[in-house]
Amino acid sequence: MQPIRIGIAGYGNLGRGVEAAIAQTEDLELVAVFTRRPPESVTVAGEETPVLAWDTIEEHREKLDVMILCGGSQTDLPEQSPAVAALVNTVDSFDTHARIPEHFEAVDHAARANGTTALISVGWDPGLFSLNRLLGEAILPEGSTYTFWGRGLSQGHSDALRRVPGVADAVQYTVPQPTAVNSVRAGHQPTLSTRDKHTRQCFVVLDHGADEAVVREHIVTMPDYFADYDTEVNFISLEELKRDHSAMPHGGFVIRSGTTADEHTQTIEYALTLDSNPEFTASVLVAYARAAHRMNALGQIGAKTVFDVPPGLLSPKTPDQLRAGLL
Amino acid sequence: MQPIRIGIAGYGNLGRGVEAAIAQTEDLELVAVFTRRPPESVTVAGEETPVLAWDTIEEHREKLDVMILCGGSQTDLPEQSPAVAALVNTVDSFDTHARIPEHFEAVDHAARANGTTALISVGWDPGLFSLNRLLGEAILPEGSTYTFWGRGLSQGHSDALRRVPGVADAVQYTVPQPTAVNSVRAGHQPTLSTRDKHTRQCFVVLDHGADEAVVREHIVTMPDYFADYDTEVNFISLEELKRDHSAMPHGGFVIRSGTTADEHTQTIEYALTLDSNPEFTASVLVAYARAAHRMNALGQIGAKTVFDVPPGLLSPKTPDQLRAGLL
Repeated sequence: MQPIRIGIAGYGNLGRGVEAAIAQTEDLELVAVFTRRPPESVTVAGEETPVLAWDTIEEHREKLDVMILCGGSQTDLPEQSPAVAALVNTVDSFDTHARIPEHFEAVDHAARANGTTALISVGWDPGLFSLNRLLGEAILPEGSTYTFWGRGLSQGHSDALRRVPGVADAVQYTVPQPTAVNSVRAGHQPTLSTRDKHTRQCFVVLDHGADEAVVREHIVTMPDYFADYDTEVNFISLEELKRDHSAMPHGGFVIRSGTTADEHTQTIEYALTLDSNPEFTASVLVAYARAAHRMNALGQIGAKTVFDVPPGLLSPKTPDQLRAGLL
Repeated sequence: MQPIRIGIAGYGNLGRGVEAAIAQTEDLELVAVFTRRPPESVTVAGEETPVLAWDTIEEHREKLDVMILCGGSQTDLPEQSPAVAALVNTVDSFDTHARIPEHFEAVDHAARANGTTALISVGWDPGLFSLNRLLGEAILPEGSTYTFWGRGLSQGHSDALRRVPGVADAVQYTVPQPTAVNSVRAGHQPTLSTRDKHTRQCFVVLDHGADEAVVREHIVTMPDYFADYDTEVNFISLEELKRDHSAMPHGGFVIRSGTTADEHTQTIEYALTLDSNPEFTASVLVAYARAAHRMNALGQIGAKTVFDVPPGLLSPKTPDQLRAGLL
């Protein structure tokens, strides 16, 4: 068997995670890392892996089966996904939920015009959590679905804290409310407000001379990010921040609770506990890269999501092996 | 939209559950129940639903899009699944894990010869649990997968108890060991023996004059069923059995625990808590019946498993609705 030849486009936390995840497989091979930075300024973990300039993707496209796009959803992927999907099969982790339909259209157009397969919005949310939201309501049509996130580091909320005047550095953890979670797990199908579901826990390093009370007030009243939540603000030193808050844990759960005949309660829970959010997302991207390659070989071109992928295509095992060993 | 026309073949607990699950959908319609008993002896919940003789399936095949096979795995399905798959698309819940490859071959042969799509081994284990075993190892290739069942009523073990001399009636619950579960959840990837993973809890009604000590010894030393487990035997009255042990709860969890780069531990857990095992299995069969119909329309004929089904085909929603609302 020829290995499936993978490229990585963008080399931050996610790109590094993809490189490590490919090294855990036997049927995938990392061909090159592509970067918009000067290639000589980027050092990758694999010493023999070529680092190439972004604008050489087109000339190297024949050496690649799938490109894993590791840019951000805000500005990178809306432009990169359609552009690269016009050249080679792709997988991206586009996670701006509200803009998924327009991202799908743009990528689908580029992929169909060029006969490629482009998996979008792969990861755990969107991604594995989406899959479980779909399965839950398809199997238990009379019921309610709940998604909880955390306890985990939120990059977007940490960035918002760092923009507050007087804040030198900060991190924010999203924490599910245990009372809400327990009520959902027990099958009560509660109606939950934003404040009921999660709390926000902030660890803030102040600028020299900044006023704790002023900074705290600024944070807890910030619209969209904190005003609708119970927000806990802890002031710590820069040393404590570096020592205790450098990891990127995350996780959460999707719970579907429904009733079948005779008011029998049935509950399905899918839970993730992740030491490293970017490394786990990378592992999901790599499994779906295998599927993107296979779907393209089957003639399934265009933009696709986790909803379109037969699960067996994610595994290196043959259908016979899967039926005998895992079914 | 024309509704998808469903038949039920076999009307026990599972068949009744399928009937109730179809009533919760808007796009599926129950056409008829087929039975090997005299049709006039079978009363179904839906007053207007025809009950037809098993040997009329062939003459009614044009009125059906999918037949849901609700027989048992021991003797019914090995014969019924290939026979009915030769006539119409089918879904079955064949759950004898060791015999799945041979069942697949027999059903695949019949389905391919007749252009039908036959989903086998659908339910929660095999079925949803299988899906999560596959996803877990595809995403976290360096790790371990654990399946725990219960707390739940085991039909096979209850039947084994009832065959013990001196036992008038009995039920058996399979109970996961909390210490084992907690160790797995914590990411320790323990090596667990059969005895470490589950205990067996028996509620037994004695025949008049039977000896408790003799019956207990017979049970706890029974090979395959109880000898390898810590088994608790409780003697109760027939009234207590009927009052407290008539429900059919079940559930369990599949946990995949693995490591990514830098020894980061990542844990995925899929958990079911079911008030009614047959009704939940029925709900899974009904969602997959929708997919069987659609796969057949797409020309995907032959025997298939949950590994072959793109998840989006399980939902009554369109791909656009799924992407906008659930991704």
